[in-house]
Amino acid sequence: MDSRPIGVFDSGLGGLTAVRKLLEVLPGEDIVYLGDTGRVPYGGKSRETILRYAIDDTEFLMRRNVKSILIACGTVSSNALREVQEAAGAIPVTGIVELSARKAANSTRSGKIGVIATAATIRSGAFGNAVRRYLPDASVTEKACPLFVPLVEDGRIHPGEPLIELCAREYLAPMQEAGVDTLILGCTHYPLLLDVIRGIMGPDVTLVNPGEETALYISRELTARNMLSGRSDGGSQQYFITDNSEKFGSVASLFLGRDAGQFVTHTDITE
Amino acid sequence: MDSRPIGVFDSGLGGLTAVRKLLEVLPGEDIVYLGDTGRVPYGGKSRETILRYAIDDTEFLMRRNVKSILIACGTVSSNALREVQEAAGAIPVTGIVELSARKAANSTRSGKIGVIATAATIRSGAFGNAVRRYLPDASVTEKACPLFVPLVEDGRIHPGEPLIELCAREYLAPMQEAGVDTLILGCTHYPLLLDVIRGIMGPDVTLVNPGEETALYISRELTARNMLSGRSDGGSQQYFITDNSEKFGSVASLFLGRDAGQFVTHTDITE
Repeated sequence: MDSRPIGVFDSGLGGLTAVRKLLEVLPGEDIVYLGDTGRVPYGGKSRETILRYAIDDTEFLMRRNVKSILIACGTVSSNALREVQEAAGAIPVTGIVELSARKAANSTRSGKIGVIATAATIRSGAFGNAVRRYLPDASVTEKACPLFVPLVEDGRIHPGEPLIELCAREYLAPMQEAGVDTLILGCTHYPLLLDVIRGIMGPDVTLVNPGEETALYISRELTARNMLSGRSDGGSQQYFITDNSEKFGSVASLFLGRDAGQFVTHTDITE
Repeated sequence: MDSRPIGVFDSGLGGLTAVRKLLEVLPGEDIVYLGDTGRVPYGGKSRETILRYAIDDTEFLMRRNVKSILIACGTVSSNALREVQEAAGAIPVTGIVELSARKAANSTRSGKIGVIATAATIRSGAFGNAVRRYLPDASVTEKACPLFVPLVEDGRIHPGEPLIELCAREYLAPMQEAGVDTLILGCTHYPLLLDVIRGIMGPDVTLVNPGEETALYISRELTARNMLSGRSDGGSQQYFITDNSEKFGSVASLFLGRDAGQFVTHTDITE
């Protein structure tokens, strides 16, 4: 038994898609979420800056005495996983890259796998490399989609909305040409575009949701190590954000599928 | 005579449109530019965060011993001008709001003026209020264009590019419906969309470029106060950025109209 909270961090609110799954499968666990909304987005920043922000985020969660850290940010998972694990010491750290790569490798029939993510994530090659560790002769098609995050944050997520449709058709064209049968949504914002992406890619392409996969993995790991709280429900939620934008309410409920306004605290990340 | 440099800051690289004009009209002046690329964009952040960043930027330039500060950021100019002036003490501070409002008030024939800018700038109402100070019965139509900055930074700036055309037509529709004859481009990224915007608004609408207007004003002010360097050319340029993104070269030359890679230094803003 271990009553410490599970820590989750992301550059913004996209990581709430992972929290949503944690709340569903581990309703008795306390959750501490840090969304670095004051410095979002990480995806276009240099590796050096991403590293510095990732360490800030990790140390913030460590000060909250978490028992496990889920990096719900594709950019950090693919650029700074090792450094975050070093900063976390004995606390296990799980990024969203490994689990989604494994899921994709297990799902594909043709060996043709697509990855869409931010510019920094694609530049790192992390998803492609991870997929090839599980499936050495996989054919991986990667595409940076730098406009997806601003479009999602502007609420352009519904099928038929002209800008997101035009943009998604452009970004997904290489995936269609390559004939991928499995597509990793390598940024936790992208699951909000599930319907748009499915509309373009068709029902036969498996879409891998990294936040969900990682939440499920952490649930299995904590169970196996006997590190759950022992409660079957009533876990608390705390959401820390570094910018008290009035957008939190509406955007967070999109990602989380529920209202969480009462659990939100504004924080200076160095506190 | 005053040989100290002119300081310019922006959340990112858009403020280089103001530097471009300074280099043209004051080639003998030293210029220090700070682009807070590590924390860009400011436009969607809360006022509290914008204020904190603006003070950091101002103090950075003060430590470089500047004789004048040009705030080339619409978001800071409209949310934090007073606070920046307080932090700058006796050093004169000029934001891009006042000058562009005056220019628009002088240019309009119908009294119908449009303002496009980031969400935070529009929320502040600063441009509209400034316009009405110069032209009390002006009819001002304001529209936040949150997707313009990511589209510009993604290089979608050319007429005929489908995404920027679709997005610009949506954002400018209220301006066309209102029949504005003058449109303030209230964010220093937007002059890169001049051709796209002119294509939609037509040749009879005056487009006000705030970076240029403010650079011209500072040139006149320094001349009037006898605070120029006394040199007619050979001024130095220093560009500080807070994220050493490889994007600097290509994006900066778009804004600046020349290559400036050799004058760039990466800095921690608190140094």
